[in-house]
Amino acid sequence: MHSLIVYAHPEPASFNAALRDAAIQTLRSYGEVGVSDLYLQGFNPVAGPGDFTRPVNPERLGYVHEQRHAAAARAYSADILAEQDKVARADLIVFQFPLWWYAPPAILKGWADRVLSYGFAYTDEAQFECGLLRGKRALLSITTGGSEAELRTDERHTGTVEQFLRPFGGGVLAFTGMTVLPQHIVYAAGSLGEASRRARLRAWQGHLRTLAA
Amino acid sequence: MHSLIVYAHPEPASFNAALRDAAIQTLRSYGEVGVSDLYLQGFNPVAGPGDFTRPVNPERLGYVHEQRHAAAARAYSADILAEQDKVARADLIVFQFPLWWYAPPAILKGWADRVLSYGFAYTDEAQFECGLLRGKRALLSITTGGSEAELRTDERHTGTVEQFLRPFGGGVLAFTGMTVLPQHIVYAAGSLGEASRRARLRAWQGHLRTLAA
Repeated sequence: MHSLIVYAHPEPASFNAALRDAAIQTLRSYGEVGVSDLYLQGFNPVAGPGDFTRPVNPERLGYVHEQRHAAAARAYSADILAEQDKVARADLIVFQFPLWWYAPPAILKGWADRVLSYGFAYTDEAQFECGLLRGKRALLSITTGGSEAELRTDERHTGTVEQFLRPFGGGVLAFTGMTVLPQHIVYAAGSLGEASRRARLRAWQGHLRTLAA
Repeated sequence: MHSLIVYAHPEPASFNAALRDAAIQTLRSYGEVGVSDLYLQGFNPVAGPGDFTRPVNPERLGYVHEQRHAAAARAYSADILAEQDKVARADLIVFQFPLWWYAPPAILKGWADRVLSYGFAYTDEAQFECGLLRGKRALLSITTGGSEAELRTDERHTGTVEQFLRPFGGGVLAFTGMTVLPQHIVYAAGSLGEASRRARLRAWQGHLRTLAA
């Protein structure tokens, strides 16, 4: 089983980094593990005309139109191709990120905008169950600043945690055909003591072993 | 009435740009209109250590912790301060963007991540109805690639359009205290003929005049 960890956090000493490292360590027992460390890579999350090396219409950017044409000829910018190749190889993709404003950090949103393109991840005919990335499993592993109780008090405005993760999980990932696993959430990650952190990391590794087996 | 238009689209000839220009033209009759053209500005959407000019802990980034301290001393990077000053002046903020992957483009998500900071937009005590940006009105004006019928067929995975706009509208904006108005949506914007485009622009201007009056 080949895995890919797409990781988006600016601080190398964060609990997100510890969760990433725990996942790498565990998943290496089962096969190759790729890592996309978006902050470390300086990944550009801003979709734009530079994403295409041989644009069909250099005068007027039609983003999805260009994606269609770039897919057949691999005429994407090198950073997009590198990410797509990592996705193509993976059977399991773990997205490790902090929840910022009820959603992934911009650097990860932009990874989806640019990498999961028409022709690579889906077409007009190949969506959801028929998406081009079907057969792969995706797992969102998330930390939150607020506690579970605090997020529940926001529900009147935001909907439930499950609902506000749906644009990314049920939307982005399921649309491409990936099987989206139940998310792994560590609430109030910043307030965990050392013993709790260690316990959460052990539980996370156990969870991944169960998935891999 | 002072307005701010936060605009996120890479193509100057897009229908999004036309909607932006129509809004500028209309709202100028009622007062000052600021524009944040995120692509034109080359806005950096990636939250990171460079966002703080006098970090409390340069060794280990605690993003919200740094935001707290930066707010009192205006010790944010210049691009964040410029955006916050535009928000502070505005009574009405129009967000004009294409829906990409059921959410705002990364460049706009990062505007929220960086600009709507602890101490500027909210505190532990000042959230939702008590948020620091209360009294301002916010309006999401969105174009979609798919038709309304296509988005409905995605609902099993993604929830309704109303639900997947809630992380940004009900979440980000309502959390800061803004009054979030019903969204303005132009479905299948890329397929509109010239007459339909003109009709939609006129309707949009009428809608804005009603809001302003």
